[in-house]
Amino acid sequence: MRSLLLVAHGSRREASNEEIRALTALLDQQAGERFDQVRCAFLEIAEPSIPDGIEEAVCAGAREVVVLPYFLSAGRHVAEDIPAEVRSKQAEHPEVRIRLAPYLGLADGLPRMLLDLSDP
Amino acid sequence: MRSLLLVAHGSRREASNEEIRALTALLDQQAGERFDQVRCAFLEIAEPSIPDGIEEAVCAGAREVVVLPYFLSAGRHVAEDIPAEVRSKQAEHPEVRIRLAPYLGLADGLPRMLLDLSDP
Repeated sequence: MRSLLLVAHGSRREASNEEIRALTALLDQQAGERFDQVRCAFLEIAEPSIPDGIEEAVCAGAREVVVLPYFLSAGRHVAEDIPAEVRSKQAEHPEVRIRLAPYLGLADGLPRMLLDLSDP
Repeated sequence: MRSLLLVAHGSRREASNEEIRALTALLDQQAGERFDQVRCAFLEIAEPSIPDGIEEAVCAGAREVVVLPYFLSAGRHVAEDIPAEVRSKQAEHPEVRIRLAPYLGLADGLPRMLLDLSDP
């Protein structure tokens, strides 16, 4: 079983966290055969935390977890904090493959998507 | 003349601001006939500010400026601060059309792009 974990920063504004949960539901609908389950987790403030999100996926039967940072730039959170959380959970669960995907800001299609938003 | 202004939050980490400038250069290359010029501006911390970015575009000859919020969720910056800056510059330059595009988090193609990043 293969699981995708969308990781966002987490906000004091609950509507922003709800946006992440709605996006997670959309990803789950569109995942097709790529992922059996899609969940979200938050670096700070909101729940579940990244370790709890990974743990939930593993308890639900995931043998591979892809952690996707929903961040636009490679600040300390992307470069250090999220990889550290992933390494720590990987050490706890050597039987599960936990892989970090590139953060959103690295997506090749981003410039085209921005132009399409600006000039529909 | 039509100008696109990519608006990011701005970071204390100069490398993050440089990522925005590099993305702006990419957008400029890919804009084709959609925009004659692409610039960036920052809500806080980095330069130019949003009013200065709009002013530079107008001084360079823009008669239409599209302001594109490079933000993932509709927090106060997207819902209030950026629209207020745009309204204020529009009042100063009634001869120029200044239009706010949807923020990145609203892009239809975002779920597909996230799945492609996670499962290339």
